[in-house]
Formats: sequence, structure tokens, C-alpha cells
Amino acid sequence: MADIKRIGILTSGGDCAGLNAAVRAVVHRAVDTYGWEVYGISRATHGLLQRPPEFHPLTRVPDDYDLLVKGGTFLGTTNKGNPFAFPMPDGTVGDRSEEIIEGYHQLGLDALIGIGGDGSLAILRRLAQQGGINLVAIPKTIDNDLGSTERAIGFDTAVNIATEAVDRLHFTAASHSRVMILEVMGRDAGHIAISAGIAGGADIILIPEIQYSMDRICDHITTLNDRGKDYAIMIVAEAVCNENGEKMTHQLALSQCRLGGVGQYLADNISTRTGAETRVTVLGHVQRGGIPSPLDRLTATAFGVAATDLIAEGRFDRMVSWQNRQVVDVPIESAIAHYQAVDLNGTLVKTARAMGICLGEPVRVPLSV
Amino acid sequence: MADIKRIGILTSGGDCAGLNAAVRAVVHRAVDTYGWEVYGISRATHGLLQRPPEFHPLTRVPDDYDLLVKGGTFLGTTNKGNPFAFPMPDGTVGDRSEEIIEGYHQLGLDALIGIGGDGSLAILRRLAQQGGINLVAIPKTIDNDLGSTERAIGFDTAVNIATEAVDRLHFTAASHSRVMILEVMGRDAGHIAISAGIAGGADIILIPEIQYSMDRICDHITTLNDRGKDYAIMIVAEAVCNENGEKMTHQLALSQCRLGGVGQYLADNISTRTGAETRVTVLGHVQRGGIPSPLDRLTATAFGVAATDLIAEGRFDRMVSWQNRQVVDVPIESAIAHYQAVDLNGTLVKTARAMGICLGEPVRVPLSV
Amino acid sequence: MADIKRIGILTSGGDCAGLNAAVRAVVHRAVDTYGWEVYGISRATHGLLQRPPEFHPLTRVPDDYDLLVKGGTFLGTTNKGNPFAFPMPDGTVGDRSEEIIEGYHQLGLDALIGIGGDGSLAILRRLAQQGGINLVAIPKTIDNDLGSTERAIGFDTAVNIATEAVDRLHFTAASHSRVMILEVMGRDAGHIAISAGIAGGADIILIPEIQYSMDRICDHITTLNDRGKDYAIMIVAEAVCNENGEKMTHQLALSQCRLGGVGQYLADNISTRTGAETRVTVLGHVQRGGIPSPLDRLTATAFGVAATDLIAEGRFDRMVSWQNRQVVDVPIESAIAHYQAVDLNGTLVKTARAMGICLGEPVRVPLSV
Amino acid sequence: MADIKRIGILTSGGDCAGLNAAVRAVVHRAVDTYGWEVYGISRATHGLLQRPPEFHPLTRVPDDYDLLVKGGTFLGTTNKGNPFAFPMPDGTVGDRSEEIIEGYHQLGLDALIGIGGDGSLAILRRLAQQGGINLVAIPKTIDNDLGSTERAIGFDTAVNIATEAVDRLHFTAASHSRVMILEVMGRDAGHIAISAGIAGGADIILIPEIQYSMDRICDHITTLNDRGKDYAIMIVAEAVCNENGEKMTHQLALSQCRLGGVGQYLADNISTRTGAETRVTVLGHVQRGGIPSPLDRLTATAFGVAATDLIAEGRFDRMVSWQNRQVVDVPIESAIAHYQAVDLNGTLVKTARAMGICLGEPVRVPLSV
Repeated sequence: MADIKRIGILTSGGDCAGLNAAVRAVVHRAVDTYGWEVYGISRATHGLLQRPPEFHPLTRVPDDYDLLVKGGTFLGTTNKGNPFAFPMPDGTVGDRSEEIIEGYHQLGLDALIGIGGDGSLAILRRLAQQGGINLVAIPKTIDNDLGSTERAIGFDTAVNIATEAVDRLHFTAASHSRVMILEVMGRDAGHIAISAGIAGGADIILIPEIQYSMDRICDHITTLNDRGKDYAIMIVAEAVCNENGEKMTHQLALSQCRLGGVGQYLADNISTRTGAETRVTVLGHVQRGGIPSPLDRLTATAFGVAATDLIAEGRFDRMVSWQNRQVVDVPIESAIAHYQAVDLNGTLVKTARAMGICLGEPVRVPLSV
Repeated sequence: MADIKRIGILTSGGDCAGLNAAVRAVVHRAVDTYGWEVYGISRATHGLLQRPPEFHPLTRVPDDYDLLVKGGTFLGTTNKGNPFAFPMPDGTVGDRSEEIIEGYHQLGLDALIGIGGDGSLAILRRLAQQGGINLVAIPKTIDNDLGSTERAIGFDTAVNIATEAVDRLHFTAASHSRVMILEVMGRDAGHIAISAGIAGGADIILIPEIQYSMDRICDHITTLNDRGKDYAIMIVAEAVCNENGEKMTHQLALSQCRLGGVGQYLADNISTRTGAETRVTVLGHVQRGGIPSPLDRLTATAFGVAATDLIAEGRFDRMVSWQNRQVVDVPIESAIAHYQAVDLNGTLVKTARAMGICLGEPVRVPLSV
Repeated sequence: MADIKRIGILTSGGDCAGLNAAVRAVVHRAVDTYGWEVYGISRATHGLLQRPPEFHPLTRVPDDYDLLVKGGTFLGTTNKGNPFAFPMPDGTVGDRSEEIIEGYHQLGLDALIGIGGDGSLAILRRLAQQGGINLVAIPKTIDNDLGSTERAIGFDTAVNIATEAVDRLHFTAASHSRVMILEVMGRDAGHIAISAGIAGGADIILIPEIQYSMDRICDHITTLNDRGKDYAIMIVAEAVCNENGEKMTHQLALSQCRLGGVGQYLADNISTRTGAETRVTVLGHVQRGGIPSPLDRLTATAFGVAATDLIAEGRFDRMVSWQNRQVVDVPIESAIAHYQAVDLNGTLVKTARAMGICLGEPVRVPLSV
Repeated sequence: MADIKRIGILTSGGDCAGLNAAVRAVVHRAVDTYGWEVYGISRATHGLLQRPPEFHPLTRVPDDYDLLVKGGTFLGTTNKGNPFAFPMPDGTVGDRSEEIIEGYHQLGLDALIGIGGDGSLAILRRLAQQGGINLVAIPKTIDNDLGSTERAIGFDTAVNIATEAVDRLHFTAASHSRVMILEVMGRDAGHIAISAGIAGGADIILIPEIQYSMDRICDHITTLNDRGKDYAIMIVAEAVCNENGEKMTHQLALSQCRLGGVGQYLADNISTRTGAETRVTVLGHVQRGGIPSPLDRLTATAFGVAATDLIAEGRFDRMVSWQNRQVVDVPIESAIAHYQAVDLNGTLVKTARAMGICLGEPVRVPLSV
């Protein structure tokens, strides 16, 4: 058993559903079982940059059900400002890592639980190694691209929200005989797009991992039409790449005056080539903000408990992970190193192809096994 | 009792939730009670332009629960092409009203039920008067701007979806200390925006009916901040007008390269003036497409029955209407004539002001009664 | 303008969704507009029986979104104990009305907002008249049986939950070829049953207002079968009465060892007579407890504001009411006096019959108008 | 590659959400990729008992989105009648297995996909071995008690519905200071109860795998009260066992006139001992019947594809299984043999204890690791 009296916890990177449930579980376990103090750091590492450092002392209240179901993070978060390349007032970037480490020690913390995705965890780990911080990590990412774990907090809720949007677009697409395009999050990994696409019965799914051919997409729409389906649903990740290696991202599309981002860029092309009436919806921040799904609440709770136990056992630099119905733990390093894109030979891609969903691939992949 | 053997039904204008439930009710009543044939015209008046006219013979099946809960319209609809100013192949517009009327008579219809909003109903009424069509109308509009009825099909579901989006944005706005802006439908009437804004606890609501002052909006955000609330939720209709009478619509904003439409236009301004971090979500077509709410299903069913009864009674040129817990009927003309904007002296505006919600008004309206 | 400095507010009777939204609106209006103090009385009139009286001082906080969406009532409520016939320790009942009135005056309240249904409002009005309490009422009842208002807080959410249950039972009924029976709330008025029944596509709806014939019900199930629909959905209010005037209530059925209450009582009969496989679900308290629907939140907010304004205007003994898109006010007396059962000649009953839904009526009502 | 021309598919046992999505996927894969015929057997093995055997020829239609989202099974199912001990008209039971096998061969099927839980799969496997049926299995069970797979169709949706009910009961429990008891499905395994209990923030969870002590439960409620939480949420599986080994099941409780089943039995005890006001809700069949969650739709689709591929590969007597983000396959025998109760040393039980949730265990398990 490690000699622990006070721990800190922070949520880092984009918010998602289930963060508060994880913090709640940490407080339960740390206070009730171990008798520790818990400090909730404000706005990720930014709270540690303040002097005095900003935090909420987190105590056990008899009824904290609200935290279980509340989306976002009541600790606050931020995604501006890598401590190692921090935007300074003079326009340059500076290294403020020492200030953060100092903030941690000023609070008298014996360990820190960091909840974040791969970017945040890499930064937190670097801070931990540099500054002697006893770090334990909890994975969260709506993109589901962290390695070494089957689940991360926030993904299930995001897929639910995206699928619900696909469901709704079906009705209006069919009523108006349109190609409806839904742009969802996923800059580097297309897990939301392909999961919600299969679950929602999309006709076309574009993900960052697979280069698409506009010919193939238009051909698919025409084929559907020939078969008597006069509408189509297309779900696209926010960054895609065509067969010539030309990337199109949400931001890039916007800078070219493509309101609707990647979706609109594709819609314009499809409309020109096929004559189809197209409409674009960018799902945006609603993907992050819902009441967490029961699965996300359960995962977050189990992760919060297990992360606290890792501290009690003095097993630092590790991340809790979901594998085969159980929470286990892995080195943080391995989770970051094994970035998890959509597996091109995995079940999702295979299932999508088998269902006749067009993934934009230039060559029609033979369906037989 | 009118001598009726066969009736037609069509859904016109933008699709919404509850249309199929209304068609289902018409079929029940017409077939079971009156023994009529029912023809479902394809794609609004477009089905009547085809030769032969396109329609689905609608029969009673033992189990048609699916129709009750399915969004959109299985008859199809379209919002391109006013029959009186129809886009012709040569680029001009032509009057194709006689063709539509002819199509109606070719089908041997004794009466027609038209489900539509004010635009569609005005066109249908003109066709009816010109061509001897026995028309009965059912109001549908997610904008809720039809006069002479408390309810129209589709509005309740649209408000539910918009409110759900506001709920979700709360969490992410609070987590990141942002001003989150949600753009919803409502080109001329702000019913969705003000209803979902009050129901979702928005801080600022902009509707077409009230000219806004950017000073006032920014002042409100600053005041919230001073009081300790470091985020804000703003819901805006897709067309708004500032205190100088300058209009900004979704389309106009896009043509100025404001991805995100009106919302983005406002976000840029707010961000520049207050320094707040802003994010925009355009809810778009998901507002139309959900499974109808129970209220919309009930309204649609009651309307479908009552519209069929009007035909049986030979009372044409009338629209069914919801008033004080009951379905009554009114002249179609009155429903179109009394366009229903958000009442500036009505309960919604008064409630919003009383709750301290900023409606963008240049002058702070005194709160006391 | 009345000379007001401090008001009380209480929620009385069974809880429902939207109560907190109403209390929130009262606090906004009373504090921000009028500068009054607001005391939230604990557990209805029970808080006023305590010495000192129990209450929460309610202040304006910058962010009270949570109250808008939280079901139930954070003030607490109770439905044990009519003050005029209060269960005493010795087993008798006593009149404790004077104690409550004294409690009200001890708190130095200038007026009281009571949120309740017809039972609660009748008691509160009697207390007010006896003790010089300046009472204003806000209608809430999931049964929707209060007169003089089109809406009461909680009804829309309850109908949503009941309809969702009907939707779910459709699938399992059809899969197993069963008669599925759903028992919902409504001891004296069948608004939930008939609304959710029409909205959910039920085959049979039993409400307290219409005496049912078991012959007719079984005949209807057989007819459905003959037509090829081998399952049925039946929704029943918790108290029904057969054609011989024999009442069956949830409690009575239970005392006869009919688990599943009225639903089970009917199921046993149907099963015996038709041989159909039956299953019963008693929806119970989940009908009360959901997140309020947008409509309930909007209604509650508008009611809270308007009730506060009535106090400011010194217009007591009145209830806020929704009529034709606006909040108006009516004498509390009239709302209680005009108990609102399901109107046998109204739209709901007419629509149900027209859709071929069996209401249990001994004689098949001719469908033609 | 096996030489296949025509396959059958059936759904067996209690219905659940996602069955239709699995059938849809089988049809896609079998028809589009392999060019086979697909026969959907009516009402599980009962369709094969009819002469001629009853089935639906299943063809590919351009738009079968409806099947993806529809709950239950459109093929029908039944849970009366083990073919090896079939209830005969004379009151005895008989072996009708040969008739079923004959029915399979009459249809000229080359293989059969059976979707079921452990009971159904054991029967189907016995039929297959006896009659030379090329069987492939897809796991479905809302109880999640099948071995050798992380997921089975229907469980995620059932947990969502149960958790939603817990959420709703929180509000009404808190408003009335009650102990609210929710009885959910799970005769032998408590997965729904413990998952929804943790996800919904329940105070007490009883599952079949852990014998409970009434003393301990009442002590827990009293402790909560002492700490200032005057209400409690308790979720119980439909069959539980006390510390003396006395079993109480839903059916047994009913036969003792405990309407509300196990829940009521416990409620009576708690009420008597603690004086707490208790209320019971039996969730019942609504747990089965919802629109499938996105996760269930995705799982069902991937399973349907993979099961069809197993047939193409001639790999029979195997069940598709979800393991570590991928679909794999295992012997049907192993899935049945390794019945999966809630693991007493696993993550769920550990998490529940760590959160201070009472599992009814006679001895308070020390919280420290």
C-alpha cells in the first residue's frame, strides 16, 4: 500500500459524457474506502498554472446522483494550451511545464488521476515523468482511438447521438428523395462514423482510414436509384482523403467557403455529378454533451474505482482499461503508442462491406469471403 | 351527406413528423366508416402532373402501427415547384395548374385532403377554386405559424428535438466556458426558437419578430459573467434582423462565407466584441425527421379523422383546427390570412423576459408588470 | 400593486415532472423583478406543521438549469394527511388546519403559491379562506382532470412515458402473438389511458368514464384475429367499471390477490374466455418521475411567472390557466368545481372510436357521423 | 466453401431488441454475396412442426431500414414447448423432435441459423445432432448469461430501459422520501440488475448470485437516513435468495398473493422493519420491446454477417461471439456449458461494493483492496 493522504483529479481535452460519473466514483472510493482527501483541479492543467492553484475540494455528500447523469465535466476543461508549447502573451510559445508541476506540489498531492484522450495523456505523462507526479490515467475519448482498451468514456454516448441523427435523417431523406449527408466527429479515426453508419443503416460511410473515390460514391448512388431506392444516407467523418491523397478537413473546407465543412464539399461534388438533391448536417458539439448512456456511466464508474485502487497499490504510470468484461490496467505508454484507428481487416469494416455499404473504396471489394 | 366514392390525399411542403399518422387516420376513417377508396398522391402535386397520375391505392391493413410512428411522409413530398410558376426546362416559369387539376379529375377523385403549411395550403386552395376540387386541409408546419389553430402537425416534435440539443449544449458550454449558439428553423416565425429556448433554459433567444442589438447581447453575456456564470447558451432562428433593419438569413450568411449561417455571423461578432469563445451548431434537417411525439401522433390522428368527416359532410374549403382541447374546423382562408408570428404581447415573450432571458431588444424592457 | 415582501411556495400531492421548473420560474420572477424573498415550504403543508416551520430560503443563483430539467420536487411533497382530517397518534383523525395557518403566519409570508391538483387545491383554498392566506394556485396533475385549463404540469410527460411503454409492448406482443395489457394511472379520469392509447396505436382502451363489457372486449380480440392480427395491445386506467356497475380498482384487485391489479383482473378474464396468452404491465411510479418534456417545462415556467405576477397585482384566490396559446387566470373555485373527466362527446373519444379502437362499450357505436 | 443453396433462420425463446437487425444482416449477406435463398421460419421451431412447414421467403428489398430499428422479431417466436417434452393435447408430454427435423428437410434447407439464448441453443443443438441439421448460432439474451461471448443481442437495450426506469424513480423517491423498489428480469443471472443499478445510482442491488440478509438491507437504509438521505432506490432481480437459502421468485411471490412479486415481498419486509414508505414497480415486458440501441443494432448486424459466413465456410455447430472489438466464433457447446453468472470476483461486483452500494451480503465486505 502506498502512503497516500491527498490526491488530485483533472479532466483534460474535449469534454464528453461520463466524466462526472468517473470523478464521482473516485471520490466515493478515495474518501469512503481509503479516507483520502480529493482535490478536483479546475480546467485541466490550467488550474495548476494559477497561483494559488485552483481546485475544488471534493467531499462525499449523501446524494450525488446528479453527478452520475450530468454530461460534460463540472471541473471544467480546456483544449487550448499544451504546457510545453503554451501560447504566450507576446505571440510566442513557451514551456510552462515547471509551473504546472510546481502547482501540483504546492497542493501537497500524493498522486494525480488524469482523465483524457491520447493527446492529453501523452502530455500528462511527460509532466509526470519530469516532475515526479504519481500519475494514473482514465481513458476518455469520443473518437475511441486509444489503444489497449475496448472502451473509453464518452464513445458510447457519442455513437448513440450520431445514430439518432442518422435515424432522423432517414425519414426526411426518403420523403424528399434526397442524399442526406451527416458530418460527425473523428479527425483521425472513423469509429463514430462507421459505428453509427452501420447501426443507422447508412448507404455510404467515409472514414479517415479509407481513401475514397468520388466515382465510386456516385456510382453507388446511381445503383441504389436503379434498384428503386431514390434516396441515400451518407455519414462522413470530419476529415477524409480522396484516392489521389488530397485531404479535406472540416476546417479546410470552411476556409474554402464550404459551409457545412467536409459534408458540403462532398455534397457539392455529388450534386454536380449525379444531379441528386443533397443536404448537409454537421452534428457538431451535440455529440459531446448528452446525458451519459448507461454503458458510459457504468464504464466511468468502474474506471474511477479501479484508478483509485491503482493509487492505493502504488502502481503509477498506468491506465485503467476495459478488456473482456473486466477492468484491468496497462502502461499509459502502451495505450498512447498503440493508436487505434478503425481496423481495415476488422469486424466493423468487414460488416459494412458485407451489408453493401459503400466505403468509398475505388475498387469494389469482392464480397465473397 | 356528400356523395363520395373516392378521395385523394397528399402531403405538401417540407416533411415533418406525424404526416404518416394523419394519412393512416384518414384511411381508417374513410375505408372503415364510409367505405370509400383512398388514393395517396405521390410527391404532393407532382404526382398529379404525371401521366398517368402517380398514386398509391391505400387500403386498410390489420396492423398499420408502423405508420403511426414513422417520421416523414411515405407518400413523398417536394418543395420545388409552385404549379403557378413552375420551373420549365427552358429556364422560364410556366403555369401548370391546369395539368394538376386535370390529373385530379383523371383519377376520378371526389375530394382531396391536403396536408400542408400556409404556402402549400394557399396554392392548393387556388387550385381547388380554379378546378372544382373539393378540398379539405390539415395543418402541418414545424414553424407553427398557421393561424386559427393552436396546434399543427410536426411542431411539438421539432421543439422536442431542438430542446434536446439545447440540453446537450449546456453540458459542453459549461465544461469549456463557451458561448454555444444553436441555429434552428423558423424563417419568418420564431416559435421553435423561443419555445425550445425557454424549455431548455437558454440565456439569449433571437427570433425574426424582434430586432436585436448586438450591444445588448454582448452586454448580457458580460453581465452573466460578472454574476459568475462563465458560459452562455444562445438559440437563434435562421433569419434575424438587427436594430438597423439589416436582415441576416441562413442563405445570406452562407453566401458571405459564414459557414454556420446566421449562427456563425453572430458568433463572429460576439467573439470579436467580448472575447468569448464561441461555437455554432446548425440543427438543420434533424428537426424534421424524428419519430413523432405522442402529442403529434394524437393531433395527427384526430385531424385525419376530422378531415375525413368534413368530406362526408360535404363541408369543403375548410381546415381542421385544434382549439381548447377539441378539434373544430375553420375556413382555409382564415388560417392562411391570419399568419401567426410569435405574439410580442403574448405568453412566450412575456415569460422569456420575465425569466431574464435576453431577446436582443435594444432597450432592456422593464421587468415589472 | 400589492405590498409584498416575502412569499411562500409549496408543492402538494403526488409528485410529477415540471414542479421544479415552476418553482424556478417563481424564484426568477419574484427575486429579479419584484425583489421579494421566497420561502420554499418543505413537504407541502407538512412543513408548516413543524415548529419552527420547515422551509428552504430560495435565492437566485446564476445557473439553475438543473432545476429546469429535474423531475419530482426538490421541496418534497406528501400525500398523507388532509389537515382537516389528519391521522393522529391515537388512531383518530384531527383538525390541524389552525396549526398550518399559524405556521404560515409565523414565517411572515405575505402570499402563498400552491402547486397541486384538485384535491390539494381544494384543501389549500379552505385553509386560505379560514386563515387569511393570500393564495395563488398553479395546476399540476398527471391525470389532467382539472377544469378551466387546457394544460396542467406533468400530464404531457406522463403521456410520453405511457406511450413509450405502449410502443415497446407492440414489439413483444407481435413477436409472441399475445394480448399485452398496460395499466396506467388515472383513478377517476382516463386522460392518460386514452391519449397514450391513441398515440400508441392501442387496440382496446378502458377508462373510468366508460363502463366496459367483457363480451365486447373479447369479441374485439376475436375480430382482430379473424382479420389476421394475432396480437392486441390494451391500455387500461387503474380503475374501471363494467356494464353492471361493478367497479374494479387497482387496490381492490390487489386485495383479491390479483397481482397486476386491474390489468391482471382483466387479463384473467380475457384469457379464460378467448384462450389468448395475456401479459400485464403496471407502469406505476415511472409515470411520475421523468425529466419533464419540453412542453411541461415551458408550461411550468410560464405558470410560475404568471402566478408570481398575480401576487404582485394582489389578485388572490386565482389559478393560472392555459387557454388558446396564452396563460390566463381563473378563480381556483371554478377549476375545482369543473372537474374534467374525459369528454364522452369530445375529440378523444370520437377519434378513438373512429380509429376502430374498442372502448369496451357494450354496444358497438355506429361509426358514421 | 460449403455447397449451399438455401438456408433457414429462426428466432427462439423470449423476444428482445435487435433480432430483426440480425435477420436483416443474414439476408443481405446470404443473398447479395452468396446468392442463396433464405427462409425465415415462423415462430421458432413451431413453424417446422406445421405441415407444410411455415416460413417467410426473405428477399432483398432496396430499403429495409425498418427492420434495423424494429424491436421484437417479425418471424415470431414462442417460449412454450420444448420439442423433446412437448405438451400434448392429452396432458402428457411427447417428443416431437423428429417432426421438426422432418420439417427442416421438407423445406430443402442446407443450413439453419438459430438465434437464441442458452436454453434455445441447447435444444437446437440437440435437434441438429439428431437430425443432421447444419446449425450455426447467434447469441441473444437480455440476461447476458451466455458464456464465451462479451455481448449478446438485446442486453444493452434491456439495460438502457432498466436504467431509465431507475432514473425516473430517483425523482419520485426523493420527492416523497420513499424506498422505491424496481424488479427487473434475470431469473438466474443478475446482469441487468447490477448493471442498471450501478449505472442508475441505486443504493441496494439484489441479484440471484448473492444471498441477501434482510438485516443488512434494513441497516443500510437506516444508515443512509442517518447520513441525511431520506430515500433509497433498490433494484432487484426477479429471483433472489436470502441468507438461509430461502428462494423467492416472481412466480412464488405471486402465488403468496404478493402482487409486485419479489419486489413486493421485500417491500413488505422493509416497511415492517424500518417503517419506511415503500413502493414497487415491476418493469416486466417493456424491458424486451424497445427500439434496439445502436450497440445492439451493430452487434446484431455483425453477428448476422459472421453467422452467414460460417455457413459459407462449412463451419457448423459454432456460435458467433464478440471478443475484444471483434466477432469470432466458438463451439456452441462451450457457450452453453460456460453459463455466465455475475462474476462474484469481477468488475461489476467489485465496483458496486466500492461505490458503497449494498448487495445484501450478510457481512459488510471490507472495502479496502
